[in-house]
Amino acid sequence: MSTTPNPGHMLLGMQFGNGFGAQPHAWRAPGVSPDALTDVDAQVRHAQTAERGLFDFLFLPDFLHLQQDLDHEPPTITLEPLLTLAAVARATERIGLVTTASTSYNDAYTLARQFKTLDVMSRGRAGWNAVPSSGEATAANYGRPALGRTEKYERLHEMVQVMQGLWGSWEEDAFIGDQAAGCYADAAKVQPIGMQGRHVGSHGPLPIPPSAQGQPVIFQAGGGGNGLQVAGRYANGVIGAVFSIEDARAQRAALRQAAADAGRDPDEIKFFAGVMPALGDTVRDAVDRRLALGKDVLPQRVGYLGMMLGLSLGPEHLDRPLSPDQLAVTRPHPGDPRSERALAVARDGWTVREVLAHGVIDYHPTPVGPAEVTADHMQEWFEAGAADGFWVSIDVYENGIDEFVDQVVPELQRRGLYKTEYAGSTLRENLGVPHQYGLDPRLG
Amino acid sequence: MSTTPNPGHMLLGMQFGNGFGAQPHAWRAPGVSPDALTDVDAQVRHAQTAERGLFDFLFLPDFLHLQQDLDHEPPTITLEPLLTLAAVARATERIGLVTTASTSYNDAYTLARQFKTLDVMSRGRAGWNAVPSSGEATAANYGRPALGRTEKYERLHEMVQVMQGLWGSWEEDAFIGDQAAGCYADAAKVQPIGMQGRHVGSHGPLPIPPSAQGQPVIFQAGGGGNGLQVAGRYANGVIGAVFSIEDARAQRAALRQAAADAGRDPDEIKFFAGVMPALGDTVRDAVDRRLALGKDVLPQRVGYLGMMLGLSLGPEHLDRPLSPDQLAVTRPHPGDPRSERALAVARDGWTVREVLAHGVIDYHPTPVGPAEVTADHMQEWFEAGAADGFWVSIDVYENGIDEFVDQVVPELQRRGLYKTEYAGSTLRENLGVPHQYGLDPRLG
Ligand SMILES: Cc1cc2nc3c(=O)[nH]c(=O)nc-3n(C[C@H](O)[C@H](O)[C@H](O)COP(=O)(O)O)c2cc1C
Ligand SMILES: Cc1cc2nc3c(=O)[nH]c(=O)nc-3n(C[C@H](O)[C@H](O)[C@H](O)COP(=O)(O)O)c2cc1C
Repeated sequence: MSTTPNPGHMLLGMQFGNGFGAQPHAWRAPGVSPDALTDVDAQVRHAQTAERGLFDFLFLPDFLHLQQDLDHEPPTITLEPLLTLAAVARATERIGLVTTASTSYNDAYTLARQFKTLDVMSRGRAGWNAVPSSGEATAANYGRPALGRTEKYERLHEMVQVMQGLWGSWEEDAFIGDQAAGCYADAAKVQPIGMQGRHVGSHGPLPIPPSAQGQPVIFQAGGGGNGLQVAGRYANGVIGAVFSIEDARAQRAALRQAAADAGRDPDEIKFFAGVMPALGDTVRDAVDRRLALGKDVLPQRVGYLGMMLGLSLGPEHLDRPLSPDQLAVTRPHPGDPRSERALAVARDGWTVREVLAHGVIDYHPTPVGPAEVTADHMQEWFEAGAADGFWVSIDVYENGIDEFVDQVVPELQRRGLYKTEYAGSTLRENLGVPHQYGLDPRLG
Repeated sequence: MSTTPNPGHMLLGMQFGNGFGAQPHAWRAPGVSPDALTDVDAQVRHAQTAERGLFDFLFLPDFLHLQQDLDHEPPTITLEPLLTLAAVARATERIGLVTTASTSYNDAYTLARQFKTLDVMSRGRAGWNAVPSSGEATAANYGRPALGRTEKYERLHEMVQVMQGLWGSWEEDAFIGDQAAGCYADAAKVQPIGMQGRHVGSHGPLPIPPSAQGQPVIFQAGGGGNGLQVAGRYANGVIGAVFSIEDARAQRAALRQAAADAGRDPDEIKFFAGVMPALGDTVRDAVDRRLALGKDVLPQRVGYLGMMLGLSLGPEHLDRPLSPDQLAVTRPHPGDPRSERALAVARDGWTVREVLAHGVIDYHPTPVGPAEVTADHMQEWFEAGAADGFWVSIDVYENGIDEFVDQVVPELQRRGLYKTEYAGSTLRENLGVPHQYGLDPRLG
């Protein structure tokens, strides 16, 4: 039960943001409506396309304050994610529905109820990316002081445990539904949990029967020692920020070790490496696509690129390749793992603007060119044991999801690296992670 | 703007509970699946039927702890109401989507965000029944002590105000969406609110544009002096628990006075009287329907009925009418406004069990018989100025909503008391209540 449905197949999740796409100027791309932030029908359409590509799950980021410069770009997050996914659930059948929700600014009873409702409504496809929230801006939106680092993680652990306790408080076989006899359920199997930690408590029970997969799957994103411990104990899916195979293998190994340390089978955790494909019929086309998408944004990054390369770069360098003199003195900055690739792209003779258009300062690696380039990247990482699957950020959802599904997915299938149908109908089945109901009895 | 779209037409809302219906044994009725609690498709179907009947809104009760005896009956509430309505929103076009949410156990930022999301997703059809929560069982689910009565209402006022402040924090004309120029919005029109009360605060802004009706409509249910003050200040819809025309007129008048006291136009508040029709081709059929639905429940109420009538009644009296001796000494109990009707039904010669099957101890008046009886009741109350409309509780949703829509609605239309099409596409338009965005400037 606790291995990937087909061990030779990679898993795929899709970043599902504000309706536009992962590139900041996606909202301005041709064919995109500027209203996509509030257009649930568009979000449903994008989810259906991802499902056509057999993506195992959608994954929604979430933040509890507005971070964007609205003069120039939309908020990066969707409308409220749980309601968005409730709408998407009825229009899809198989794709998993994972969203971020804060462990710092929610009550366990409310959040457990909302996630289990999503899980029941979607017939077993919900997942929760459990993240602590930081910063004064979020705290101010909640009218209370920010939690300290220690408290923040204590609270996270308590939230996950109390919520799982509540999820299990309606036992799996409590429902009877005998209309003739008038027996709705076995009330003895719907019991209080009476859990009370230092920060979070709930008496229960939760009045919601199990879903088709029992209860939602836990995800974790990002790293650090605290995050690793959280993931090791609770998560079945982890999204990493990794820029090299070596780094990804190391993170995946650390994660698997953390699971083992918590008494779990390491195969219960699937590690996803991010990837942000730039697709085009040729490399030139793909670079042009990103140049167009990054028109106003790329130039702002020239100084940072210079820092990564150990050069002083300004706007005047944008439209030239690095000179032989510049190339002679570049040094990839050891503090940014993306510097090596930036240098390699620069050495190929692209202009500085074009180097930036290769996504060298993006959040995840960007393969540039026809579908085969992205497939090569994914194959290499997957076969090197760097990831169990990928978290794909599509630059512009409108048309871009279709392109990935029609070009990259068939290429992966031809190579025998990707399924041709869903393994099952629940998120647990599709991830190949074990059944769990209530708390994990193996954890202390 | 602030009058009912057609002043000769009554408004209609529908109680939308746990998927089964308003009678405790609805889950056992013929044609009902015992799985309806978790079947969102069934809920969508019921909502669509209500929309076919031009109901102005669905209204979901909510409670934050399990109150039922699950051995014998399902939880009375749906799966989490906001997610339920998010699913219903995409499958409906005109019907309003109102749900209860607690002002005691939610954060303003989260709840404002979820309700405004529902409002945007439904294209302006969301409403919020703002209720304070009481009792130790709910407090225990949230792991903190229950609020005192004063605090509870202070917190309610602050919640409504901070949420409305957040709703208005993205100004109505802030969005620009000029793709060519790269102007997404006018950021100067998306500003913090910096509201901080004694219990509730939020800095803002909320990253959500206005909906088709601006922001959700506020509802209030139930009474008391505190509730009246809340309704007078904020509500556009109030559901009452009233058992006579006189009582309903008095409550409606008090409500309208409370609105005037708060500096508002009384026509901005619509008062809904509850009604729980028992439909049948004849009165006998309607009574038989309720006898079948109440098989195990009605006998438990015989003692209470005795108290209402000033008699000592036990199970041995169930299947006989009251004797002339009993009738000679009955006295309707002044403490329960339903006693007069119970006595009138008993005098008609029904057995005690049948008297109970007339719904004489139900939460709202129960007209018993063919559609005309329900239409007569509604017409009489409406024309007496007892209500602007009705909150209809259907006994068994499966088939029962269809019956109401196919029998009572056409009868009301024939009498010129009910619309033949929706007045508009937003809840505000359909209720005939004025535009509001952000806080009401008339309130201090
Ligand atoms: C792929 C990915 C996605 C993330 N998504 C979110 C998110 O949606 N919301 C959020 O608050 N943090 C998100 N994070 C941030 C991590 O949760 C963050 O690294 C974690 O909170 C560590 O915080 P700490 O440094 O305070 O321990 C994400 C990180 C990664 C790598
Ligand atoms: C038609 C109707 C529906 C109600 N629905 C709810 C509900 O869904 N949830 C709830 O907590 N209270 C509900 N109430 C109860 C009222 O909100 C309650 O009377 C109010 O909270 C007064 O409380 P107080 O006595 O503490 O002031 C409802 C009342 C009526 C008349």
